[in-house]
Amino acid sequence: MCDIEAFIVKGCARTYYLDDKGAEVILQFAVEGWWVSDIASFHEQVPSNIFIETLETCEILYLDHKTKETLLEKAPRFERFFRLLVQRNLSVTQNRLINTIAKPAMEKYLDFLNRYPSIPQRVPQHYIASYLGISAEFLSKVRAKLAKQF
Amino acid sequence: MCDIEAFIVKGCARTYYLDDKGAEVILQFAVEGWWVSDIASFHEQVPSNIFIETLETCEILYLDHKTKETLLEKAPRFERFFRLLVQRNLSVTQNRLINTIAKPAMEKYLDFLNRYPSIPQRVPQHYIASYLGISAEFLSKVRAKLAKQF
Repeated sequence: MCDIEAFIVKGCARTYYLDDKGAEVILQFAVEGWWVSDIASFHEQVPSNIFIETLETCEILYLDHKTKETLLEKAPRFERFFRLLVQRNLSVTQNRLINTIAKPAMEKYLDFLNRYPSIPQRVPQHYIASYLGISAEFLSKVRAKLAKQF
Repeated sequence: MCDIEAFIVKGCARTYYLDDKGAEVILQFAVEGWWVSDIASFHEQVPSNIFIETLETCEILYLDHKTKETLLEKAPRFERFFRLLVQRNLSVTQNRLINTIAKPAMEKYLDFLNRYPSIPQRVPQHYIASYLGISAEFLSKVRAKLAKQF
């Protein structure tokens, strides 16, 4: 079970899932100012099948489920803060879903650069390819094509 | 811009997106007890590229952005209600994303049946295929295979 919601003060992390064949599927990158968790597991207190891994030495603040509930009970003003946070997360996830289903690789990569400008310098290329749902070779071609345009 | 969050009292609706070639990509079905909206557009008050369509005669309650903000200002207790709602939505969207990227068609369809038991009797098969990201022909094969197992 994922019993923490982690806030990244410094560093970079990823969340991933293992598919039926044991291949990693990257769900999210998180850098400074982002929260990272398996929200379904955390809130419904059910087992998690998502892994969280730091990619750099990280400075992290975190809340466990019980502490968060106590905080919200004693200071209900935080409800709004967390609602806005979950909304932003939902908006990113919804956008990711649309990109995954409906957009060509070039557009996916440009959207990725726009959303995560610092990531390409910080993580291995094949992680980005995994996030975009394309092969590392295809990502190289997309980047070469982009380099020619700029 | 999507300026409403709609709650379905009775009926069935879908949200969809048009890809680069003008093809529909179904993002969500919603039946009794579900909320439907373009959350990014609603909360960030930016243009929407998601369409909402009723598939049956619906009875709907809805909140516009201004009314919702007034409600939350006057009755901050609703912050918790809406946070829990967005969390559930995020959990569904995250699961959908994992299914789309990492699961074979049979598993996706079983997960779909589990989550939306009443939908197959209520909407055209090609809508379900679109939601699952597979062709209508392939969905027929999956269903035929399932029928043999039961």
